[in-house]
Amino acid sequence: MFFEGAEKKLEIRLTPKLASLRQREYGFWSTLVACANAEILSTISNHACDAYLLSESSLFVWDDKILLLTCGNSTLVDAACHFINAVGVEHIAALCYQRKNEYQAQLQSTSFADDIAKLRTLIPGKAFRVGHLDSHHHYLFCSDNQFCTGDLFCTDSQVMPSTETCLELMMYHIRGELADYLKLPTQTEQGIYQRLEFQQLFPDFQFDMHCFQPAGFSLNAIRGTDYVTLHITPSMGQGEHSYVSFETNLDLATYPHPVVARLVNGFSPTSWDLIGFDQHILTEGFPAHLCLGQAMVTTASGGEITFSHYQQLETQVLQPEFM
Amino acid sequence: MFFEGAEKKLEIRLTPKLASLRQREYGFWSTLVACANAEILSTISNHACDAYLLSESSLFVWDDKILLLTCGNSTLVDAACHFINAVGVEHIAALCYQRKNEYQAQLQSTSFADDIAKLRTLIPGKAFRVGHLDSHHHYLFCSDNQFCTGDLFCTDSQVMPSTETCLELMMYHIRGELADYLKLPTQTEQGIYQRLEFQQLFPDFQFDMHCFQPAGFSLNAIRGTDYVTLHITPSMGQGEHSYVSFETNLDLATYPHPVVARLVNGFSPTSWDLIGFDQHILTEGFPAHLCLGQAMVTTASGGEITFSHYQQLETQVLQPEFM
Repeated sequence: MFFEGAEKKLEIRLTPKLASLRQREYGFWSTLVACANAEILSTISNHACDAYLLSESSLFVWDDKILLLTCGNSTLVDAACHFINAVGVEHIAALCYQRKNEYQAQLQSTSFADDIAKLRTLIPGKAFRVGHLDSHHHYLFCSDNQFCTGDLFCTDSQVMPSTETCLELMMYHIRGELADYLKLPTQTEQGIYQRLEFQQLFPDFQFDMHCFQPAGFSLNAIRGTDYVTLHITPSMGQGEHSYVSFETNLDLATYPHPVVARLVNGFSPTSWDLIGFDQHILTEGFPAHLCLGQAMVTTASGGEITFSHYQQLETQVLQPEFM
Repeated sequence: MFFEGAEKKLEIRLTPKLASLRQREYGFWSTLVACANAEILSTISNHACDAYLLSESSLFVWDDKILLLTCGNSTLVDAACHFINAVGVEHIAALCYQRKNEYQAQLQSTSFADDIAKLRTLIPGKAFRVGHLDSHHHYLFCSDNQFCTGDLFCTDSQVMPSTETCLELMMYHIRGELADYLKLPTQTEQGIYQRLEFQQLFPDFQFDMHCFQPAGFSLNAIRGTDYVTLHITPSMGQGEHSYVSFETNLDLATYPHPVVARLVNGFSPTSWDLIGFDQHILTEGFPAHLCLGQAMVTTASGGEITFSHYQQLETQVLQPEFM
C-alpha cells in the first residue's frame, strides 16, 4: 500500500478591503476542500483562527488569510482556482502555491508545471524549483509583487511587506521506537501525543488530532494567530516510504524549546528538509548529519526563503525491494 | 533542452547450442536497435566482439552474448522482446534488464513496472529496486535461475554459473574544467579523448567515438572480449542535469590503473553511483565523500551485485530554477 504523504500547500492573503474570512459559512470551506478531493473531519477555533483537520491534512483560516495543506493525490490547484474565483482576484494580496518532494510524482494526477499553467490563467506569478531532480526538490509559485531572488525579481517596485514567518520540516524514512509505535494497530491519538511531548513543547496550545486507518496521524494546534500542524504517513506494507511533516508560524529561533531538534531526534529520519520563510535555521541538537544542499531566495520585502536538505552522517544499508 | 542521459541496459546470454551471433547480418542489428528507437552510427570489430556506436548509446555483440545500452526516451524493452522472439526463448540462457536512476522518470514512455510486465509475458524472472524513491535508485530484472538474494531466490537448485564481471559508474552534476569543455561548441572527439587520458588508461584498446550536436559524447572501446563504454550528457540550457556513464567488464580491482577514481576526479560529479557485478569496489583516490547508501544482493552462483551511492562531502549551493 502506497500513500503519498508529501503535501501541496496553498497560502492566500487577502487585501484589507474584504470582510473577515471567518464570517464565511462552514459550507464555503467544505466546498473548498472538496475541490481538492478532501473533507473536513473536525474543527477547533479561538478568537483569531479556525483550524480544520482534513481527511488529507489541514486548513487554517484567519480573518485575512487561509492556509490549506493537502497530501495524497489531492488536487489542491483546483481549490486554489475555486477560491480565487469565489473572492475575486482583485482581493488577493498574495498567493503562494507549493509542492514538496514526492516519492512517486508520476502517480500524481498533475505535475507542478500543469498546476502553475492553470494558476497563471487567473493570477500572474513567478515559479521556481530548488533542489536537483535526482534528489530532494521543492516547487514554489508566488503571485507577482511578492517574491524576488537576486536581481531577477527585484525590478518591481511594488513591494508587499510581510512580517509573517513559517518553518516547514519534512522527514523521510523514519526509524526507531516512535516509528515502530506508529505502525502498531494499537496506536492511539493520546499515545502519539504523549510520545511527541507536544504538551511540553506547546503548552498553551489547543489541540485537535486524528488517527487514520490502517495508519497515519494528523494534528492541528492553535494559540491566538499561531499554528502548528503535524502529519505522519508511516510506511505500511512493502517498501520504505514513510514521511512526516511539521509546520508552524512560530519563530523557532527564539522559541524556548528546540522543537526541530526534538522532532528530528524523535523520528530519526534518514533524511530531512527544512524550508524557512524568514526563519533562522538552528541545527544545534541535530544528529550527526551532512547538509547535502542549501538554497536561499531573497524576497522583494527583504525576507528570505531558505531550503536545506540534510542526511544522517552514516551509510544506509539498503534492502532490495522486490517487484 | 532536457535529454535523459540515464541508460536502460539489456544483457542476454545464449545457450551454447545456437550459432554465433556474430554471423548475423548487419540488418538484424539495425532492426534490433530500431525497436528501441535508436540507429547504428558506426562499428568496430575484433576477433571476439563487434561494437556498435548508436544514436542512443551502444550495442556490443559477442558469439553468445549481446549488451545493448540505450538512453533518452528509448524503448529498450521492445528490442528485448524482439530479440527473444527472433532467437527463441529456449535459446536464452540468461537475460538481465536494468533501468538506472532517471532525472525525469515521468517523461519516459513506460515505467520499469510496465517493462517487466511485458518481459514476463515472454520469460519468467525476478525484479527488484535498490535505493529509496526520493534518492538514487536502480531497477533490475533477471530471468529465473540466475540471481538470488539472501534466502529469497536461492531455493532454486538450477544454478547458472558465470565468471562474468561488470562495473557501472554513473556520475551526476559534473563540474570543473572537463565539464566546462564539454559545453563548448568547439569540443572535438580527440579533445575529449585526450582529456580523458583513455590512451593511457586503456592502451591496447580499439576506440570508436562520436560527438553529438549540440553536445554529448559516446565512446566504445574493445580489446578481445573486453569492452569499455562511456557516454556523456552535458547540461545544456536551463537547469543542471548532466550525466556521465562508464561501464566495463574489466575487473578494475586488479587493473593496473585506478580508472574509477580517475573518472570521478576528472568529472567531479556532485554525486555518483557504482553498481558492481562480481567486482570489489575500490574507493581509494575518491574525493572526500559520504556513501549515502549501499546494498548487496547475492546471486545463485555465489556472485555479488553491489550498489553504492556516493556524494561529495560538502554542501551544494543550489540555485533556484525558474519555471
